[in-house]
Amino acid sequence: MRIRLHIAYDGSEFHGWQKQTSKQVTIQGVLECILSRIFDEPITCVASGRTDAGVHAQDQVVHFDISRDIKHYNLANALCSLLPNTISVKKLYVAPEDFHAIYTATHKTYKYFILNSKYPNALKNRFVFWTNSKLDVNYLNDCSKYIIGEHDFKSFQNSGTEVKNTIRTIFEAYWEIKSSNILEFRISGTGFLKQMVRNIVGTVLDMHAKNLHPEKMVAIINALDRKKALKTAKARGLHLYRVYYPPELDKRCRKL
Amino acid sequence: MRIRLHIAYDGSEFHGWQKQTSKQVTIQGVLECILSRIFDEPITCVASGRTDAGVHAQDQVVHFDISRDIKHYNLANALCSLLPNTISVKKLYVAPEDFHAIYTATHKTYKYFILNSKYPNALKNRFVFWTNSKLDVNYLNDCSKYIIGEHDFKSFQNSGTEVKNTIRTIFEAYWEIKSSNILEFRISGTGFLKQMVRNIVGTVLDMHAKNLHPEKMVAIINALDRKKALKTAKARGLHLYRVYYPPELDKRCRKL
Repeated sequence: MRIRLHIAYDGSEFHGWQKQTSKQVTIQGVLECILSRIFDEPITCVASGRTDAGVHAQDQVVHFDISRDIKHYNLANALCSLLPNTISVKKLYVAPEDFHAIYTATHKTYKYFILNSKYPNALKNRFVFWTNSKLDVNYLNDCSKYIIGEHDFKSFQNSGTEVKNTIRTIFEAYWEIKSSNILEFRISGTGFLKQMVRNIVGTVLDMHAKNLHPEKMVAIINALDRKKALKTAKARGLHLYRVYYPPELDKRCRKL
Repeated sequence: MRIRLHIAYDGSEFHGWQKQTSKQVTIQGVLECILSRIFDEPITCVASGRTDAGVHAQDQVVHFDISRDIKHYNLANALCSLLPNTISVKKLYVAPEDFHAIYTATHKTYKYFILNSKYPNALKNRFVFWTNSKLDVNYLNDCSKYIIGEHDFKSFQNSGTEVKNTIRTIFEAYWEIKSSNILEFRISGTGFLKQMVRNIVGTVLDMHAKNLHPEKMVAIINALDRKKALKTAKARGLHLYRVYYPPELDKRCRKL
C-alpha cells in the first residue's frame, strides 16, 4: 500500500532532506525513524527532491510503502504527536502504486524570500535572507526574465553533481514586492539542478550589487560554466513551495 | 548619555528577558554582554517589562546609559554584526535623562496568536500556539469583554510574585480572525501582572473547551484567587507587540 504524504518543514536545523551515514540530523532520517516506529516495520521515504541543509519546505511531497492496511492506523494523529515542531503534516493520501514522488512530478515551484530593510528581523530571520542594500525589483525582473524557457543551466549547477542532462525548462521566474519590505522570487520549472535556484538568486543579487547590465545574464547562461555565474544565495531564504502531479493521478489519490 | 533601544526577539531559545545567576541564556544577558563589549564599559539594560521564557517581542523597549559620546560609535552597525539571529534592532534613539523604559511607559499591547487548523505548521510553530479544536471567535470575545476596564486581576497573577497592587486597567481585549487559520488576540492595558496575558488566554480557551457560559469570567475575576482561573496558555503564542510612551517624551528622543 503506497502512502502519499505532504509535509512542511523548517530546515534551519536539519542537514537537508537526505539521510546521512554520519550522525547528522536530516528530515528523511527523522521521518523514517518515526514511520518505522508507527508501522513497526522499516519504512523508506522518497521525496520529490532533496532539499539542501537550511532550505525549508512549505509543501514537500513524499511517498512510502507499508505492508499493512492503513485503516488500522490513525496516521495523522500518530505523526502529529511524534513529529518535532520543525516538521508538520499537511496532507495524507492513499496513492495508486504508479504514483512516485519524483518520477510522476510534472513541475515544481520554489520561492526565495528577501527582507530588504535597514535592520534584520529576529522573528523572520530563519525564513528570509536579509539585506539592507536597497533592491530594485524591476532590475531583478530584467535579469531573471532571461532564464525563462528551455536552457542548458550548467552555469547554475553546483560542481560535484553527476547529472548529465543539464537542460531544464523554466516557465516562471518573477520578483514581487510583498508586505513589510519582503521581496518574493517565484520560480517554476520542470526540474532544478543542485543549488540551481540559490545560484540564480545569488547571481541576480550580485549583478545588482555590481550594477551589471541585465543582458549579462544571457552570457552567463550561454557560458555553460559555473565559474561564470556569480554568488550562491543563502539557504535560509529558499522554500520549496509546491510540487505538481498530473491531475488524473491526483484524482486517483484518496484523502486520508 | 541615555540610549533608547527598540528590539525584536524570538524568545524560543531564551530563558526570558531577565539575566539569571545561573548559566541560562537570557536576552538581557546577551544584550548587556554585547553592549559592554561595544562601549568597553559595563552596561546595564532596563526593559519595559520582563518577558518569560519562550515569549517573543515584536517591539521591546530598553534603555541604558553610556559614559561616552554616542557619535563616536556606529551602534546600529555594531549591534547588527554582533547580535544573534534571534535578537534584532528596530530603532535607536538618544533619550533625555528622564526617559525610563519602565516608569515612563503609559501602556502596552500584547498579541497572542493561535493556529486553528487540522495540523500544526512547521514554519509557524515557533510563534503560535496550535490547536485543532475549532474555536469560535465570537465566544472568545464574549468571554474576554469582561476583562476590559479597571479590575483587580489577582485571579490571573501567578503565585510566587510579590506585587501588592494587583489592580490594572485593560482597555482593549479583542479576538480577530487573521489570514490562513490564524486567530489573533490583542490586549492593551496600563500594566500586566506576571503571566497575566497567558492566564487570561488559557482561561478563555479552557472555558471554550468546557463550554462554560461566558459570564463565568465575571466570577473568575471577582474570586481574586488564581486557583479559580483555569489554564495558562503556552508562551510560544505570546508576543510583546508595542510599548507606548507620552508623545512629548517621544518627541524629545533623537533618532540615531
